[in-house]
Amino acid sequence: MEDETAPELDVVQWFNADTPLSLAALRGKVVVLHAFQMLCSGCVQSGLPQARKIAALFPPTQVAVIGLHSVFEHHEAMTPVSLAAFIHEYRLTFPIGVDRPSQTGPIPYTMQAYGFRGTPSLVLIDRQGRIRRHSFGAEDDMQVGAEIALLVAETGDPAAA
Amino acid sequence: MEDETAPELDVVQWFNADTPLSLAALRGKVVVLHAFQMLCSGCVQSGLPQARKIAALFPPTQVAVIGLHSVFEHHEAMTPVSLAAFIHEYRLTFPIGVDRPSQTGPIPYTMQAYGFRGTPSLVLIDRQGRIRRHSFGAEDDMQVGAEIALLVAETGDPAAA
Amino acid sequence: MEDETAPELDVVQWFNADTPLSLAALRGKVVVLHAFQMLCSGCVQSGLPQARKIAALFPPTQVAVIGLHSVFEHHEAMTPVSLAAFIHEYRLTFPIGVDRPSQTGPIPYTMQAYGFRGTPSLVLIDRQGRIRRHSFGAEDDMQVGAEIALLVAETGDPAAA
Amino acid sequence: MEDETAPELDVVQWFNADTPLSLAALRGKVVVLHAFQMLCSGCVQSGLPQARKIAALFPPTQVAVIGLHSVFEHHEAMTPVSLAAFIHEYRLTFPIGVDRPSQTGPIPYTMQAYGFRGTPSLVLIDRQGRIRRHSFGAEDDMQVGAEIALLVAETGDPAAA
Repeated sequence: MEDETAPELDVVQWFNADTPLSLAALRGKVVVLHAFQMLCSGCVQSGLPQARKIAALFPPTQVAVIGLHSVFEHHEAMTPVSLAAFIHEYRLTFPIGVDRPSQTGPIPYTMQAYGFRGTPSLVLIDRQGRIRRHSFGAEDDMQVGAEIALLVAETGDPAAA
Repeated sequence: MEDETAPELDVVQWFNADTPLSLAALRGKVVVLHAFQMLCSGCVQSGLPQARKIAALFPPTQVAVIGLHSVFEHHEAMTPVSLAAFIHEYRLTFPIGVDRPSQTGPIPYTMQAYGFRGTPSLVLIDRQGRIRRHSFGAEDDMQVGAEIALLVAETGDPAAA
Repeated sequence: MEDETAPELDVVQWFNADTPLSLAALRGKVVVLHAFQMLCSGCVQSGLPQARKIAALFPPTQVAVIGLHSVFEHHEAMTPVSLAAFIHEYRLTFPIGVDRPSQTGPIPYTMQAYGFRGTPSLVLIDRQGRIRRHSFGAEDDMQVGAEIALLVAETGDPAAA
Repeated sequence: MEDETAPELDVVQWFNADTPLSLAALRGKVVVLHAFQMLCSGCVQSGLPQARKIAALFPPTQVAVIGLHSVFEHHEAMTPVSLAAFIHEYRLTFPIGVDRPSQTGPIPYTMQAYGFRGTPSLVLIDRQGRIRRHSFGAEDDMQVGAEIALLVAETGDPAAA
């Protein structure tokens, strides 16, 4: 499969960020995009703790960890107001964006663009903005750490990756 | 310390229950009262899984497990609508009551009556309706299992306990 | 199934005990007999930590925890000399007896008498010396704690149990 | 600190290896050297499972995982005969060498050469045979995975590392 350019994030509100983030502006860094829902138990038990570990382990000058709140069910229960309390209670400090709700269906826009099958979903994006991993469900810490490190170690021509 | 009669529950809405529950009506059973907030990470990680294990281990004819959603912070984020989605996503099947909000402060009524210091709080109530354990924070499964079993084994005169 | 009297322990050497132990002398207490092998990974990961928790939770005047080293394989690798180092390294402080090796086969005598299917095996013996639980493999802490507590709560006529 | 060349292994017996291994012969691969004692509980609980995960995750053409049984206490309890049973029971499949016992003291030769402070100890050796990490105690899976991946990604001039 050919690596494809990661679709831009479509976010209506940011937490833990002074200004809106964009993948375009993060070009040159490895981006770890973690899509979750605050009431998804697999996200709470494994996905978000893993995202937090990544943010603590890799230097922010090299790796940007971004949470994406992609609500596709129980919309009335997972509003930005509830998310704000969740972020506070779970001590999440990396930037988290609220995926833009669709006007016509339950799936928010960024989730549609990436084709997430559910949450948690993990996307690794290289320095050139290409999707290098796209997975759904719990992931092993050692493997994810190794894959991110390999992306960090890459330089130069994206075609050579 | 003398054991005291457990204050009655003051609940505005029940989940997983066809009719409202009361401690008075449960007299004769051991009652395990687990107070939590849906966005309290200690509740999600240890308290609620423990309550679920208790409900699965002890026969409902002997032991009644009751969840109590005692919201004392982030009230706007932990409404009954959000709680309903939480209960669904975390597959909680034991009865859960919403502690009645106070009109004058953040602490709901049942929480005030019991003097909970926070969530998770665990209260064990014997067959005569007396509080026999009242604790705050994570509890050891083996110890809680042993204490409930001892209450189950008790019969007759509460003064002899 | 009728409860049966627990066979006496046939032990060639004791650790963590000033004098040899016997079930006969422990009549009146609940006895938790934990059969293990020092190189059995299931014993190291779940059985022995559980035995240690039981010994810490229940008062020794009520519950006696006894480890039984029932070696039925790799006999040359799990000698009493190796067991002594194992007990030291794993900080086991409850009494541990070495099951008497058979002269004619791999299965030691006490293991034969109880019919253990392997290790870890857990036997709960009531105050009257009767086997009340006999299980093989990892056991849940809450359930074991509850069962021991019920045996502790029993008094009087064993036939009434 | 300048990286130093890893001392050669001084091993009296190999398990899971058809022929004796040497660091010299492994030049060009990243080597993960995991020093342990079979009765060290920290090794059993975290170090050896981590070594097993590394061996499963990284291709053997790139990364060689080597266990080193460096016995510095309870020598009579951790003989090669006992180690053989341990390796079998814990299903360890990567090569494991027995560190050569000293004639004059408790510390075996390779342990002396590396200056291990105890077990578990982890050493990461790069493709040029230089020590790049040397640590004692439990290590985080994600961090270790990332460090090994970075060594795998290195090529060319060791001075540039």
